[in-house]
Amino acid sequence: MDNKLMLMIPGPTPIPEAALLAMAKHPMGHRSSEFDAIFAECTENLKWLHQTKSDVLSLTVSGTGAMEAGIINFLSPGDRVLVGNNGKFGERWGEVAQAYGLNAEIITAEWGQPLDPEKFREKLEADTDKKIKAVIITHSETSTGVLNDLETINRHVKAHGEALIMVDAVTSLGAANVPMDEWGIDVIASGSQKAYMIPPGLGFVAVSPKAWEAYKTAKLPKFYLDLGKYRKDAAKNTTPFTPPVNMFFGLQVTLQMMKAEGLENVFARHQRLMKITHAAVKALGLGLLAADGAGSPAITAVVPPAQVDAQKVRSLMKKRFDIALADGQDHLKGKIFRIGHLGFVCDRDILAAISSLETVLKELGYEDFNSGAGIAAAAQILSGS
Amino acid sequence: MDNKLMLMIPGPTPIPEAALLAMAKHPMGHRSSEFDAIFAECTENLKWLHQTKSDVLSLTVSGTGAMEAGIINFLSPGDRVLVGNNGKFGERWGEVAQAYGLNAEIITAEWGQPLDPEKFREKLEADTDKKIKAVIITHSETSTGVLNDLETINRHVKAHGEALIMVDAVTSLGAANVPMDEWGIDVIASGSQKAYMIPPGLGFVAVSPKAWEAYKTAKLPKFYLDLGKYRKDAAKNTTPFTPPVNMFFGLQVTLQMMKAEGLENVFARHQRLMKITHAAVKALGLGLLAADGAGSPAITAVVPPAQVDAQKVRSLMKKRFDIALADGQDHLKGKIFRIGHLGFVCDRDILAAISSLETVLKELGYEDFNSGAGIAAAAQILSGS
Repeated sequence: MDNKLMLMIPGPTPIPEAALLAMAKHPMGHRSSEFDAIFAECTENLKWLHQTKSDVLSLTVSGTGAMEAGIINFLSPGDRVLVGNNGKFGERWGEVAQAYGLNAEIITAEWGQPLDPEKFREKLEADTDKKIKAVIITHSETSTGVLNDLETINRHVKAHGEALIMVDAVTSLGAANVPMDEWGIDVIASGSQKAYMIPPGLGFVAVSPKAWEAYKTAKLPKFYLDLGKYRKDAAKNTTPFTPPVNMFFGLQVTLQMMKAEGLENVFARHQRLMKITHAAVKALGLGLLAADGAGSPAITAVVPPAQVDAQKVRSLMKKRFDIALADGQDHLKGKIFRIGHLGFVCDRDILAAISSLETVLKELGYEDFNSGAGIAAAAQILSGS
Repeated sequence: MDNKLMLMIPGPTPIPEAALLAMAKHPMGHRSSEFDAIFAECTENLKWLHQTKSDVLSLTVSGTGAMEAGIINFLSPGDRVLVGNNGKFGERWGEVAQAYGLNAEIITAEWGQPLDPEKFREKLEADTDKKIKAVIITHSETSTGVLNDLETINRHVKAHGEALIMVDAVTSLGAANVPMDEWGIDVIASGSQKAYMIPPGLGFVAVSPKAWEAYKTAKLPKFYLDLGKYRKDAAKNTTPFTPPVNMFFGLQVTLQMMKAEGLENVFARHQRLMKITHAAVKALGLGLLAADGAGSPAITAVVPPAQVDAQKVRSLMKKRFDIALADGQDHLKGKIFRIGHLGFVCDRDILAAISSLETVLKELGYEDFNSGAGIAAAAQILSGS
């Protein structure tokens, strides 16, 4: 049967009909008062989502482009930075730092483990002459389903006093609490195809006043990714380069939906989806890649037992139930599968995914659980017991 | 009446219903075989559109991002480049060169005049020690409606032998003939919201083998805009960063439409729309900003006589007929208006625009033409006489 695909990957995520239909409208001119009004509304609601009074800028880029902009606008060649790396995206920000000639010190943790805030504290406390210009952290590491302890790491950065904190919140913003102003985060990068509930094609960068101070003396070359241009034009409710107008039609709808649901409820829903998924995975005798207590509310990486082929699980989930799960990345390719529970996902969706997974596991000859065990575990979470 | 907007600006351009509806489908995973197939088909058809066997890469950027990528991937700090500047976009590429520390020599022409190929010939012939690494040209200058003589300038670049030619074809590709391989063009940048007939949000960069040679030693920093990454992944029918999957659903449809129409017919249609517009504008006693014979098939910049307020023309066209025309840019803001006739535009559309313009001019008290003169001039072109 065609057109029954259910996306349970960590992006693109499912899109509400109202957003799809809004995006199917004929475009309007991007230099029109009609578009300016939509842009202004979206920008206001983006600030609400980021819990900030600072700038939230919209760029036509993927999440990587947004994060790169968030790094290069505030630094100069040779600047010392600390980069957290416990997965594919943390690794990528190290590569960006290298590409631009930054002096990057990489603080690693095993894939599946969260970054250790103590390691950041030590480096930052030892830096008495304040040479560390920035600390670059992936909040929700999409490759492993780990949520790093941003709040604690950020506290150490605040104690340092000089360094900026730059956060890849691509799969955490809108799923986990990231109170920009309350915590004093300097840069937050995110992307449209995640909790925003619209397709890929828009990136967002939030910038604190302290980061704008650093911008004034930052010397890395940039033009398309020059956030100063976006800030200047955003003050006039417009953009320096042609924005993806139809994406904004969708964004307008989904930000209104998020506001109607309420930020607390959005976070609680993602927490619940994560807890249900974790409980069901354990009840089926499968492993979680993320260390205990370090799970991301956006995505769960599942390590099947040796006798179960992760690739076969994914392909059978697709073939039998038209559910798309994500593969592992890099050295985990083919060894794990990842369940996205991010954005426009409700309790029913996760029950459908778990019951389908049970069926598939039995079909693959894996018998180390009683039929219904996953759903029973899910039901327990849902009933709040 | 709502929803009757007719876009006659040089982008975003009107979108065919089939493309809008294709883009309104639920997304699919960008790492799925289904998406790989769509991406592969689009890439093949992009090569057809560029008349090339070389790479055509797709990036999530606006046209400016595509052109910046086309410049910075093949050059190093201090490289000498010639930049043609006869409008807002030519000026912008000079700014990009400056932002990246290139040694840019700007060859200017008045806004409305085409670049003089002789000036390029002189500089290139004088460069006997081959220090000029690239010549950067805007083909169709969107701000003035001028089509620069790319073919002749490119001939001088070929005679030089070393320099690459990098072309902003954002409003010419798919409207005018740009035979990449036949002419030996090295870099061509374009954007989705123009002749491609889909909304803004995708940029394209075509790269010749000679440019890839230069890439190997080019030292400007880049990561998101690093075309080597896109090339490597395109060979596997995928992208290094999440592509805007829904945009590709639309692109698939419109490239098929262009192939069905045929490249010659697409170019002939744009030529006809330009000729009709030029003839009508003259018949109404209005001026063309572009010098004789230098008009762009994508856009016509109109200079009204002193007694006619260009802003009032635009606002009345919008208010009375829901037709969006573009303002002038920079020093021409408010002094000219621009009619886009690019992409999904047919003869009927241009007749509607001209007859509406006639009515608006009369309403504004401009009487220096006989009613129907614009349409009569258009009819003459349409009848081929």
